[in-house]
Amino acid sequence: MKAEMMYEGKAKKVYRVKDSQDQLVLSYKNDATAFNGVKKDSFDGKGRLNNEISSYIFHYLADQNLESHFIEKLNETEQLVNETTIIPLEVVVRNIAAGSITKRLGIKEKTPFQTPLVELFYKDDALGDPLINDEHALFLSDATRLELDEIKEMALTINTVLQKLFNEINLTLVDFKLEFGRMKDGRIVLSDEISPDTCRLWDRDTQEKMDKDVFRQDLGDLLDVYQEILRRLEARS
Amino acid sequence: MKAEMMYEGKAKKVYRVKDSQDQLVLSYKNDATAFNGVKKDSFDGKGRLNNEISSYIFHYLADQNLESHFIEKLNETEQLVNETTIIPLEVVVRNIAAGSITKRLGIKEKTPFQTPLVELFYKDDALGDPLINDEHALFLSDATRLELDEIKEMALTINTVLQKLFNEINLTLVDFKLEFGRMKDGRIVLSDEISPDTCRLWDRDTQEKMDKDVFRQDLGDLLDVYQEILRRLEARS
Repeated sequence: MKAEMMYEGKAKKVYRVKDSQDQLVLSYKNDATAFNGVKKDSFDGKGRLNNEISSYIFHYLADQNLESHFIEKLNETEQLVNETTIIPLEVVVRNIAAGSITKRLGIKEKTPFQTPLVELFYKDDALGDPLINDEHALFLSDATRLELDEIKEMALTINTVLQKLFNEINLTLVDFKLEFGRMKDGRIVLSDEISPDTCRLWDRDTQEKMDKDVFRQDLGDLLDVYQEILRRLEARS
Repeated sequence: MKAEMMYEGKAKKVYRVKDSQDQLVLSYKNDATAFNGVKKDSFDGKGRLNNEISSYIFHYLADQNLESHFIEKLNETEQLVNETTIIPLEVVVRNIAAGSITKRLGIKEKTPFQTPLVELFYKDDALGDPLINDEHALFLSDATRLELDEIKEMALTINTVLQKLFNEINLTLVDFKLEFGRMKDGRIVLSDEISPDTCRLWDRDTQEKMDKDVFRQDLGDLLDVYQEILRRLEARS
């Protein structure tokens, strides 16, 4: 059902769908990259695990009436999604300080935020995806003030729902990154993926990192960790 | 009237006032620094010029009922001000793109902003005064949501008033940085200084830079430029 490739990103390829004007196939790659592409590697099976995990999560969100671009999992590494024009923002929700914010603002890792903190980054590799404020986001994207508020509200709702999900499988949702896209009908919906590539997940008992930080910080076997996330999700349902 | 020095910053020294619990003397230094202190020099007479210009501007704002910590100019290089506890934010208002935003977000210099853009930076030299968003500001300072909105509103009002002032003396107010402080009674007022060290000012006819960029970018004689700003302000009144 795939037609020509539209775009190849760091973690996924995007294909047009034959005879369709509004659907795409996302194909998850085995590549892992970090630090804006400076650190790179490939792990056989990572694409499958992220596709399975992301599909599970999008289904779970849909069950809670949280819409996304996701339509269905097609096979081990591919998803069918509605085509959206990506809003060039990375929306990060932080429950606990970790990663870039600890260095940027001198906040100690593991500091909890009393209310979840939302950050926007401008999706631009050449600029290093810089942090921006709301006014920059309005200047740099076609989102309106109302839409930007809705995006942040959706991100916080997704946070609440995902915290509950991960809590059930003994993981703390430390932070995560979302992207949103505009559908052909103008509405903005959750897009991209939700996986251990885009979330920080800590085991609630051991505090072990169970996400891409395993790759960033050389903490162990990335595949084992992603496999364990999938195992816990599948054991849940 | 000065008692011991409380604090020495890059551009000013701050002294306690004898037998006063709530007034300070700001003494303007001749030093110029840029790029977070990496570039440094000293210019005889710069302290006097910035004191004269800043005093003129604080008087002008007071005439428009815009309160600040400023009480009066004491002598060539010193001002008497109300003591405030500085809110650790640098509040930047941009009318036209110049300086850090051009590199950070890839916006061409001289791009006008249809509505003035407000940016907050966390005042922390060790961290390089990083850009922050509203949620960071609430986490990193004691300002409330309401106070933060008031600070931004004050910054925009000051922008309107200063644009008018500089327009009268044939200068374009490109951008500027404000700091705010909390008075003993809890109220937040404009603090610090307003001078060509903290504003970008372009001559409306020649587009010449008439501010600290002359020092940052080695464009000419800093003192000549600051002297010309003061001359135009004094010719106005």
